[in-house]
Amino acid sequence: MSFDSYKSYKKLNDFAKNPIDLTKNLDVKRIKEFEISAMNFKFLYAAERVTNEVIDELFSLAKEAKAIDKMKKMQDGETVNAIRGYESENRQVLHTAMRDFFEDKNESFNAKNASNLAYQEILKLDSFLKNAATKFDNIVQIGIGGSFLGPKALYEALKKYSKRNKKAYFIANVDPDDSFSILNEIDLKKTLFVTVSKSGTTLETLTNEEIVRNHLKKHGLNPKDHLASITGKNSPMDDPEKYLESFYIWDYVGGRYSVTSMVGAVLLAFTFGMDNLKKILHGASNMDKIALKNSYDNLPLFSALIGIWNRNFLNYSTQAIIPYSQPLLYFPLHLQQLDMESNGKSIDKDGKFINFKTGPIIFGDAGTNAQHSFYQSLHQGTDIVPIEFLGFKNSQYNQDIVVKGTTSQQKLLSNLFAQSLAFSIGKKDENPNKIFLGNRPNHILLTDILDPYTMGAVLSYYEHKVAFQGFIWNINSFDQEGVQLGKKLADKILDIFSEKNKNFELGQAFLNHLNKK
Amino acid sequence: MSFDSYKSYKKLNDFAKNPIDLTKNLDVKRIKEFEISAMNFKFLYAAERVTNEVIDELFSLAKEAKAIDKMKKMQDGETVNAIRGYESENRQVLHTAMRDFFEDKNESFNAKNASNLAYQEILKLDSFLKNAATKFDNIVQIGIGGSFLGPKALYEALKKYSKRNKKAYFIANVDPDDSFSILNEIDLKKTLFVTVSKSGTTLETLTNEEIVRNHLKKHGLNPKDHLASITGKNSPMDDPEKYLESFYIWDYVGGRYSVTSMVGAVLLAFTFGMDNLKKILHGASNMDKIALKNSYDNLPLFSALIGIWNRNFLNYSTQAIIPYSQPLLYFPLHLQQLDMESNGKSIDKDGKFINFKTGPIIFGDAGTNAQHSFYQSLHQGTDIVPIEFLGFKNSQYNQDIVVKGTTSQQKLLSNLFAQSLAFSIGKKDENPNKIFLGNRPNHILLTDILDPYTMGAVLSYYEHKVAFQGFIWNINSFDQEGVQLGKKLADKILDIFSEKNKNFELGQAFLNHLNKK
Repeated sequence: MSFDSYKSYKKLNDFAKNPIDLTKNLDVKRIKEFEISAMNFKFLYAAERVTNEVIDELFSLAKEAKAIDKMKKMQDGETVNAIRGYESENRQVLHTAMRDFFEDKNESFNAKNASNLAYQEILKLDSFLKNAATKFDNIVQIGIGGSFLGPKALYEALKKYSKRNKKAYFIANVDPDDSFSILNEIDLKKTLFVTVSKSGTTLETLTNEEIVRNHLKKHGLNPKDHLASITGKNSPMDDPEKYLESFYIWDYVGGRYSVTSMVGAVLLAFTFGMDNLKKILHGASNMDKIALKNSYDNLPLFSALIGIWNRNFLNYSTQAIIPYSQPLLYFPLHLQQLDMESNGKSIDKDGKFINFKTGPIIFGDAGTNAQHSFYQSLHQGTDIVPIEFLGFKNSQYNQDIVVKGTTSQQKLLSNLFAQSLAFSIGKKDENPNKIFLGNRPNHILLTDILDPYTMGAVLSYYEHKVAFQGFIWNINSFDQEGVQLGKKLADKILDIFSEKNKNFELGQAFLNHLNKK
Repeated sequence: MSFDSYKSYKKLNDFAKNPIDLTKNLDVKRIKEFEISAMNFKFLYAAERVTNEVIDELFSLAKEAKAIDKMKKMQDGETVNAIRGYESENRQVLHTAMRDFFEDKNESFNAKNASNLAYQEILKLDSFLKNAATKFDNIVQIGIGGSFLGPKALYEALKKYSKRNKKAYFIANVDPDDSFSILNEIDLKKTLFVTVSKSGTTLETLTNEEIVRNHLKKHGLNPKDHLASITGKNSPMDDPEKYLESFYIWDYVGGRYSVTSMVGAVLLAFTFGMDNLKKILHGASNMDKIALKNSYDNLPLFSALIGIWNRNFLNYSTQAIIPYSQPLLYFPLHLQQLDMESNGKSIDKDGKFINFKTGPIIFGDAGTNAQHSFYQSLHQGTDIVPIEFLGFKNSQYNQDIVVKGTTSQQKLLSNLFAQSLAFSIGKKDENPNKIFLGNRPNHILLTDILDPYTMGAVLSYYEHKVAFQGFIWNINSFDQEGVQLGKKLADKILDIFSEKNKNFELGQAFLNHLNKK
């Protein structure tokens, strides 16, 4: 059944004709009561344009769409990455098995099997690092998309937990300025390079690895002594002649869901240590269990439903994500990929074009910086942008001073709460330039501190939020056919450059612009 | 007269009912002919949904709105930052005077005066750096919003041009993890700190300066020997007792337009040298003159009009900016601020609420990385997002290798042109998951290389694009009243923290969530 033919869809549409006016109704009672919590998180949603009735109806929607059943099936290893009746990836989706090493393990055959295989890689990594951590200070990850944004976001978020002298770098872009700006700067002798490609055939990544090998040789070093790979078993990159070690990933872990597989694990364990890696995995795994709960405190489901309310019923097409935490600066870029690559789809799981909106445009930046950047538009612009704030009670470095009676951390939190209020309650004024219309929906995900355990949980929270929205919309959140056409056309233009085939006239027409003044 | 009552508005609305179908009409001839050029730039717009008729009508719109007159008035130093009939900033807007030191200088009294004052600061900077460059290796800029994003974007973009050992850092966020993560890492003895605040009263910035002073003292250093300021004359920060030197900025240079004032100049000249700073200014100034031209090759105006076509007539609410150049990674964040803070407005220059859309949501990332991230949604999602691509014929480092018959730079350019085509022409297929509907509008700004001169020109191109859109919509692109409410509410919550005043009940209700589990 289609999303827009559910009974609850109709009811929610009726509610949306007259949503609650926050400029009149946001009061102390609401701030106190509109809260759910799970693990060490609170989800404060007083500033969303919902009532208890709307929330109840959203959970009816989740029930009609069998959202939790589908989550269970995913975590159990059923084939959920598929378009019925058409050629498609036809795969299981088991990123949750990559970290199912703690409480309440999944007992299904597929999940257990995947988890056991993943744990062998953890052991392999542990033994590899005993040696590598003494030989190398730098790790450079060569990979793009899911092999880049997630690991980069977590590395930046948790830098505070780095082991002495350990640093990570990333080469992602095929732009030669990306690789050489890094290669020219680091001490090659103390550097481990790790190439990530599941298939062992990603153009950008293989090109960049070739640049690295070339550069190492030029500097009198043997590439084999400096390179490891993260790839599928038996791929061209699973080769002991070329790499110190090969760590395995599987086709049931998609790139953008791969942070807790070896794709993120090697770099995160190298820089932060195995103990901290395990805390990340533990946090993620505990949130995986929360995602299976059939109750309102299923955090990722709650968040997914609020998102659907804003997207499909209040009709907002973008979503801002603003962590009030500078170390999370790169996290919105990971979430942009996670959400937009998963749910930027127009056909359902039966291959039919759909009549409603799917994944929104995601963007974000760290608060308070964002306040001095694009908040003007969010407060007084002509489009309404729902916001998800992330807040932390304590800072990471635990260094702070009192200026004008308050610490910086208190200033940060004051700004967070003030913005949530400003966006929702607005302000009247005689001067039209000082009018704030309010009713800009937002909520706050609040927790104690950004540490490895919490980071893992937040990561998993978003993975499942996105998956739940896909389940409810009945789209396939796990493939990415939309990236194929550009690749094919790029190959045709490359054939013109390499003089293999000059017959692609549209490409040639663009290349002509390179020549004439 | 209002934007939506122009004659051309009606005609453009008619054209927009049936825009050209690129899946059928994008051919070699169009790619060849749909091009304008100025300075060392080409603007390739074959993949926009426009015809020659539409372009002509857009220029009629510009004429009706007196866009070029208004640009001239701005550059001449008339009071253009104002809302008529209401209390407002009432200021000139003279960022162009900050770099008007080259050909065809503006002869108006106000512009000349501002330019002379700015040049005195350049001379002051030159003499300051003769000493400072020998004493310091690091520069840390303390500032937020416009004092951060622009200088950061240009620093990252031009790092290749850094003088030996010179490095720049930024402390922007009031989050204490932002300042301490940097302070814990650098050699304080070799570090110059530069605090930027026009008024000398920005909360985040003063707090961070206090943290820095405290930290220097703790490490046995005299803050005065390590601090300079960039501020308004006679502000609390214009104080030789506290700073090695104070560089001046004026209220006719808004934060987001201040990169070429001392706000950017001190840091860029420290790291890249005065010569490179002058090249940046020269590039910007030359583009300022292009913006005054009454012809189709007025690049910023052309771009502004294409943006208005997509925003107001084809009704797209977001705009992606994708430089195919890794060093420009941070530039979209600057442009997000520049555009959304300038044009995220809902009232016109007479204080009347308007009935059309203004500045879109801006986001972006470097290509090819973006291809592996959010392009899925842009190709096959339910919302159409116009794209501006930036392309460079050559890489900066001039280091490259041939892999599979082509260089990395050729691969980068192939991907750029291929995506422009893929988005516009689309693809039919039996398998619905492999269908690309096409007609996703995009254009390419193409030039030779990302060097200081070009960077300055690109910066100015965007400043004027945004200003032109504001002129045509008849809104004030130069104030930011939308940031005030959040500030005021944050102060009220800070009063609860510091126990000055506990009467703000909504704030207190949020703070209660910090305490209970």
